[in-house]
Amino acid sequence: MPQKFEVHIIGCGSALPTRKHLPSCQVVDIRDKLMLIDCGEGAQLEWRKTGLNWQKITHIFLTHAHGDHVFGLPGFLSTMGLLGRTAPLYIHGPSNLQTYVEFMKAHFFPDFDYDIRFHAIDASLHQCIYEDRSMEVWSLPLKHRLPCCGYLIKEKPTLPHIRREMIDFYGIPTWAINRVKAGEDWTTPEGEVVPNSRLTTPADPVRAYAYCSDTMPTEELAEWCRGIDLLYHEATYAEGEKQQAERYFHSTASQAAATAQAADVRKLLIGHFSARYEDESLLLEEAKKVFPNTYLASEGMQVTL
Amino acid sequence: MPQKFEVHIIGCGSALPTRKHLPSCQVVDIRDKLMLIDCGEGAQLEWRKTGLNWQKITHIFLTHAHGDHVFGLPGFLSTMGLLGRTAPLYIHGPSNLQTYVEFMKAHFFPDFDYDIRFHAIDASLHQCIYEDRSMEVWSLPLKHRLPCCGYLIKEKPTLPHIRREMIDFYGIPTWAINRVKAGEDWTTPEGEVVPNSRLTTPADPVRAYAYCSDTMPTEELAEWCRGIDLLYHEATYAEGEKQQAERYFHSTASQAAATAQAADVRKLLIGHFSARYEDESLLLEEAKKVFPNTYLASEGMQVTL
Repeated sequence: MPQKFEVHIIGCGSALPTRKHLPSCQVVDIRDKLMLIDCGEGAQLEWRKTGLNWQKITHIFLTHAHGDHVFGLPGFLSTMGLLGRTAPLYIHGPSNLQTYVEFMKAHFFPDFDYDIRFHAIDASLHQCIYEDRSMEVWSLPLKHRLPCCGYLIKEKPTLPHIRREMIDFYGIPTWAINRVKAGEDWTTPEGEVVPNSRLTTPADPVRAYAYCSDTMPTEELAEWCRGIDLLYHEATYAEGEKQQAERYFHSTASQAAATAQAADVRKLLIGHFSARYEDESLLLEEAKKVFPNTYLASEGMQVTL
Repeated sequence: MPQKFEVHIIGCGSALPTRKHLPSCQVVDIRDKLMLIDCGEGAQLEWRKTGLNWQKITHIFLTHAHGDHVFGLPGFLSTMGLLGRTAPLYIHGPSNLQTYVEFMKAHFFPDFDYDIRFHAIDASLHQCIYEDRSMEVWSLPLKHRLPCCGYLIKEKPTLPHIRREMIDFYGIPTWAINRVKAGEDWTTPEGEVVPNSRLTTPADPVRAYAYCSDTMPTEELAEWCRGIDLLYHEATYAEGEKQQAERYFHSTASQAAATAQAADVRKLLIGHFSARYEDESLLLEEAKKVFPNTYLASEGMQVTL
């Protein structure tokens, strides 16, 4: 069974509040390590409904300095402090967000027992900005009205699985198992060569998720997100508001779908809906005409990769 | 019929978020002029449910620089800008909040078409900080861990009502009506003196509302709030957590009730409940033992004075 890799939608609205949507926030749960992407107002309140553990958040990735993506951050940081967090928290984002984070900390919670470590990102570069043993996070330069970057979270390749029963059958000693995992054949004491393919089953495929909001369509994105399992792409407007989208550096649902198609991703999730749409099925229909495997994000949604 | 004077509860929880309560925020609607008191996270989302008009907010009164009272402010200010506000907005609060308001404006909405005018209040003084033709707002120094003031909103006395039918009966001319309103008797051309009491009915009683959060019990409060119609007083803890209340400069429900009793107010509304109480009926019971006319605040509640 593959390791856990889930995306929880906390909020998928845009700048104006509605009765239906919260501003942008998601949680990526990868092997029980929780990463927050963006943190719009109300995120900590909606978080309560997920049942996820506050203290398992290790990293927060912010896309850009617009209120609907960061006004929930102070409350989130404050609550973690009140709940007794001591582990350092890493916040990644375009450098113009550093002043904000530092100002809020200095003014509202100078005495909390945990460190906030801000990692300034150059939003114009596509590069690996964080990695651990099992995964990598890459920045995805987006085209918005100010420095803005999306994030690509992908697993590192793993080794093939050994077939326990074959290891036992050939009596392969423990010291040799890692070699088999790494691809070597096994030679029995009698000189018989057992090919690696009989001793292992293939490694789990590498999974990847990309979060792209806010942005107008950008060609490189398809290259960077090629073949990934899930693409979350903003679809603020319908085709009828294309000029509006262009003016404010946003995308229409069809444009989001065109990127998904060009990137040949497995699944597209659209969000960051403008408050003008009471019912987003119009956006869904427009996107599906271009990329059939499209879904509407909604608060409380949980997607397993 | 008296003029409109209503209090809408937007949030009445305390620092830690719960599934039930939002942090502190209220709207006072006095003759269709809306004033916000405190602005905790999520206030603009809950505001949507009140059906009140964003553009009718003229003043915001902030009590102190704790996140659960002010983290919803940036979103609120931002949304008013996006909705096209042009009228200046007055924000009153202890002076250490001025930097916060100015920082947020400069970083997140420098281009909005309305002015934010911050009025720094000396939280240690009980004084009239704002008045218009029909009402006054007074600061109420509170005892908290940092400069903090509550607010007393009271109507100005009005003139008696003239009795239309008596004015007509005596043929009192228009120029004399204001004199009658001001208390003068009327002398008919025949020399008959008609006493003022026959020409008027008494003025509406002056109504007043006080918002007191966050604070530990303070004696002067009873003096300043004597006989008012409605007192909102924080009741963060039950009697069992009295030490906790003292340590963090908060009140228990009984202490809030004792203040209401000493001030001889008509009605007490308690709020700012600690997240530890799943069910606040314990707080209500404790308060009612001291001051029977006590009510629990709740989100969406609307009280007419």
